[in-house]
Amino acid sequence: MRTLRLDLADRSYGIHIGPGLLDQADLYRPHIRGRRVVVISDRQVAGLYGERVCAALADYQPLLLQFEPGEASKTLETYAVLADALIEGRFDRRVTLVALGGGVVGDMTGFLAATYQRGVDFIQVPTTLLAQVDSSVGGKTGINRPGGKNLLGAFHQPRCVLADTATLATLPRRELVAGLAEVIKYGLIADAEFLAWIERELPALLAGDDEALQRAIYRSCEIKAQIVAADERESGQRALLNLGHTFGHAIEAATGYGAWLHGEAVGLGMLMAAGLSARLGRLPANDVARVAALLERAGLPTRLPADIATDTLLGFMAGDKKVLDGQLRLVALDAIGRGVIVSGVPLQVLAEVIDATRAGAA
Amino acid sequence: MRTLRLDLADRSYGIHIGPGLLDQADLYRPHIRGRRVVVISDRQVAGLYGERVCAALADYQPLLLQFEPGEASKTLETYAVLADALIEGRFDRRVTLVALGGGVVGDMTGFLAATYQRGVDFIQVPTTLLAQVDSSVGGKTGINRPGGKNLLGAFHQPRCVLADTATLATLPRRELVAGLAEVIKYGLIADAEFLAWIERELPALLAGDDEALQRAIYRSCEIKAQIVAADERESGQRALLNLGHTFGHAIEAATGYGAWLHGEAVGLGMLMAAGLSARLGRLPANDVARVAALLERAGLPTRLPADIATDTLLGFMAGDKKVLDGQLRLVALDAIGRGVIVSGVPLQVLAEVIDATRAGAA
Repeated sequence: MRTLRLDLADRSYGIHIGPGLLDQADLYRPHIRGRRVVVISDRQVAGLYGERVCAALADYQPLLLQFEPGEASKTLETYAVLADALIEGRFDRRVTLVALGGGVVGDMTGFLAATYQRGVDFIQVPTTLLAQVDSSVGGKTGINRPGGKNLLGAFHQPRCVLADTATLATLPRRELVAGLAEVIKYGLIADAEFLAWIERELPALLAGDDEALQRAIYRSCEIKAQIVAADERESGQRALLNLGHTFGHAIEAATGYGAWLHGEAVGLGMLMAAGLSARLGRLPANDVARVAALLERAGLPTRLPADIATDTLLGFMAGDKKVLDGQLRLVALDAIGRGVIVSGVPLQVLAEVIDATRAGAA
Repeated sequence: MRTLRLDLADRSYGIHIGPGLLDQADLYRPHIRGRRVVVISDRQVAGLYGERVCAALADYQPLLLQFEPGEASKTLETYAVLADALIEGRFDRRVTLVALGGGVVGDMTGFLAATYQRGVDFIQVPTTLLAQVDSSVGGKTGINRPGGKNLLGAFHQPRCVLADTATLATLPRRELVAGLAEVIKYGLIADAEFLAWIERELPALLAGDDEALQRAIYRSCEIKAQIVAADERESGQRALLNLGHTFGHAIEAATGYGAWLHGEAVGLGMLMAAGLSARLGRLPANDVARVAALLERAGLPTRLPADIATDTLLGFMAGDKKVLDGQLRLVALDAIGRGVIVSGVPLQVLAEVIDATRAGAA
């Protein structure tokens, strides 16, 4: 087991990474303040691991709540159902929620924890690579509205994160690959050596090699923890973590949430960000090709479907949270391993980037 | 105009009290960081003051959103409608929300501000006495669920509070009286001299005398600010502010939200808390009579309706947020001007207090 700490202004918490962590009672115990625990999961993950987690938490009379898997569940309606179940069960402010699942479960449970009785504790037990390297770390929680993703939410840090790498063995390959997109992101924005390591170790990562995955998760979380510690509320550098996300969110919105996995959309979004960087004269064209080659080898999409119109995508991008007073802020690359925030990008340039990606030549 | 500051760990904000503040642009301007403002109100208050507030904020292209007045609007449904209006209008993270109205508007707008795009700024412009002395100060926001009041919410501090005492002139007398219940609360929990002042100045307060109201609001906010500054997240002493609230929330729930005003329910709840304190041997019986006499003179209810069963009320009390691990915590009085938190009160004693209040002899 590897452990790293995320140090914030008012407190810090541990991120534990390794196989078989999710039923180790001793990892939960120090972080539970009350007598009761509620485990929240989706039906699929609950079927795989719900019983083991509840058994580990038997001292806390765990209640297991489940909802339908998928991004389409990340709604106010699911939130209301879960909240009412807590109210019905008379759980008070000292309840600890355990988010057992992928990013949807973590975001939903985190938002519920942030707002149930004005805030209760929660523990993240991410069971997808994407959640282990990204959404479970850093305290962002949120739910979707018809107008866009994560438009309602809160910053609410978990008490600890248990990233059980053994759960990745049951993860569909497509989801593992989608998670790798975020791992690649950390290399691109912050660590060229890490990116080179990913390029070398890609076969092992795709084969589910536990040691390789542990290292990838550890370094990803380490980079994220450094950035989040410096900027918990995303007023500045934290925005670097959004590389590929403004494009990616627009792709998810344009294709209807759920058709593309978040990581897939972010992967293509990163390629578009690299293309943008080249058009802005910040990045050599061969680095764009390098990004495309890595995504391709990983099995991630590198082309925008022909039926997504440029204007549709631009419309969704303008509605993204990263707009500040009408100025679209985007993350670009000044080099492999060096992200940079740019604003005031002309719409025409964005349209060119989108068009080029559709043709498969960003 | 009187001004006091609420000092919190990471920032402080001003509470301005006086007649005619709501259209003073200079009071808003220092607290608006972006270019756009959204004023949120209920139809009634918007009809009275919406235009003036929007005129004062003309530089920020104000959008005015309104919902139906009353506690019944403090729902997830209203929240979704307001959130979607912000999304539709493409307001980004730098929008400032202005809560123009009573406690319902303030709680709803505050919760929306706490969660829209993971948190935006807001300004409180309370237009009821209750909101001016209580809900607009301290950062508690929330919405109701069928199972109880304010069960979903967040701590989110406003950038400033503008308590325009001139708005109290248009307040129905019943609401003014309900607000006085919270003013009386501050005297009871923290300042015997202030309580004596309220007893003396009650005729002026009921007559809407601006100077008397300003003093009452200032001292109430001052007491609240001291308590909140010491305990922003209600882990300890802040609970004193809940004097009468566990009983009161149960009365509101038992009568269906909206039949009783919050202040009316809290007023009777304070009398029950005083009765409880006497039964616990903490408060002389003549102090209970003194509380009853003041409430009576103010025109607040002092008897529980005959059709509210004791068990019904106890059931709602057990579901209240102040339950910690099954232990009901209540605020009692050790003297006039000295609140105290008690736990482990036998159910039998609570039942006796409820029964006695129903008979009108708490």
